[in-house]
Amino acid sequence: MNWSDIMAYKENYPSRLLEDAVDAISSLPGIGRRSALRLALHLLKQPQENVHHFTSAIDHLRDDVKYCRSCMMICDDEVCSICADRSRDHRTICVVESVRDVMSIENTGQYHGVYHVLGGIISPIDGIGPSDLMIRELVTRAADADEVILALSGDVEGETTAFYIYRQIAASGVKVSSLARGLGFGDDLEYADELTLGRSIVNRQIFRP
Amino acid sequence: MNWSDIMAYKENYPSRLLEDAVDAISSLPGIGRRSALRLALHLLKQPQENVHHFTSAIDHLRDDVKYCRSCMMICDDEVCSICADRSRDHRTICVVESVRDVMSIENTGQYHGVYHVLGGIISPIDGIGPSDLMIRELVTRAADADEVILALSGDVEGETTAFYIYRQIAASGVKVSSLARGLGFGDDLEYADELTLGRSIVNRQIFRP
Repeated sequence: MNWSDIMAYKENYPSRLLEDAVDAISSLPGIGRRSALRLALHLLKQPQENVHHFTSAIDHLRDDVKYCRSCMMICDDEVCSICADRSRDHRTICVVESVRDVMSIENTGQYHGVYHVLGGIISPIDGIGPSDLMIRELVTRAADADEVILALSGDVEGETTAFYIYRQIAASGVKVSSLARGLGFGDDLEYADELTLGRSIVNRQIFRP
Repeated sequence: MNWSDIMAYKENYPSRLLEDAVDAISSLPGIGRRSALRLALHLLKQPQENVHHFTSAIDHLRDDVKYCRSCMMICDDEVCSICADRSRDHRTICVVESVRDVMSIENTGQYHGVYHVLGGIISPIDGIGPSDLMIRELVTRAADADEVILALSGDVEGETTAFYIYRQIAASGVKVSSLARGLGFGDDLEYADELTLGRSIVNRQIFRP
């Protein structure tokens, strides 16, 4: 933020209602007060029923959403469509941090097992410990599984969480795997970090053109 | 948007409620479906009363906001705080496109007259003509004013609107002025466009160190 931003948008709202709306909108992650003002004025120009539709969609989501009692995925019923699908492999469980990760993996079309949504990642700095995540439920499910795939981020929190889960379930004898790390398709060798590139060489694959 | 974005976020929502919320949020300007999903999942993690506070602030803004009967500024009463201020110069009217422009000019602390908010700008391509704007009300107010300042953008729509208003009010003999155009403070000569730089030279000012 430069000097002109600070000067141009100090808190000087012509209406209390506008200020309240800007406060609310700017509480969203990644939306500053300047963008929030733009969005509030945009909503003000829309027909009243559109704005009510907008707010009620958000209220409904927060009030009425359900979580799958098996995998903790967001869903509209007691059990999500993936867990309810008998054609999927229910003995392979892919552990992810969030709903978005499930959607990303589903969109690859490459995975036919089921999921387990942790609802976060172990992060002492944010005050999130193992007991805040759905790890106990995972341990129970893992006892009946053939394989647990740890599909967590490659950062410190992800690795910590993966290691914690591994220690919890390894004793049950279930196979535990993690995502392949390596160069992405289309990635430039020149710009890859040493760790990724190193892993790519060590875990090289037979070339099948 | 690259290939991986398209692949990673095709429409495949695990819940109808989530999809509705993403539809609603992504209807805001500048927010794509991917950001909308991130925001929806953020709201889902917030306490229920925070989410209700968020939506009701927006509903209140849309339902209860008032417009000043004199200058059309957003306000909480019949008349805005600027028009109600007897110490301001009510015979100088600054014409702006929107509420944000009033806030920007107020924040400079350099203007002591009143405003007139058009509520838009003449833009045939968006189907906005003079009758969609508060121009007739301006003509009425201009009859009792000493000066009308056209503080509109320097683009084609702004110039068109300024010219249209000028033709409507010039006959009444009121003084009509427009914002000074020139190099901004801190602007680099090298990167200024020819039109702005040319205007800066023609309208040069006596140097007062």
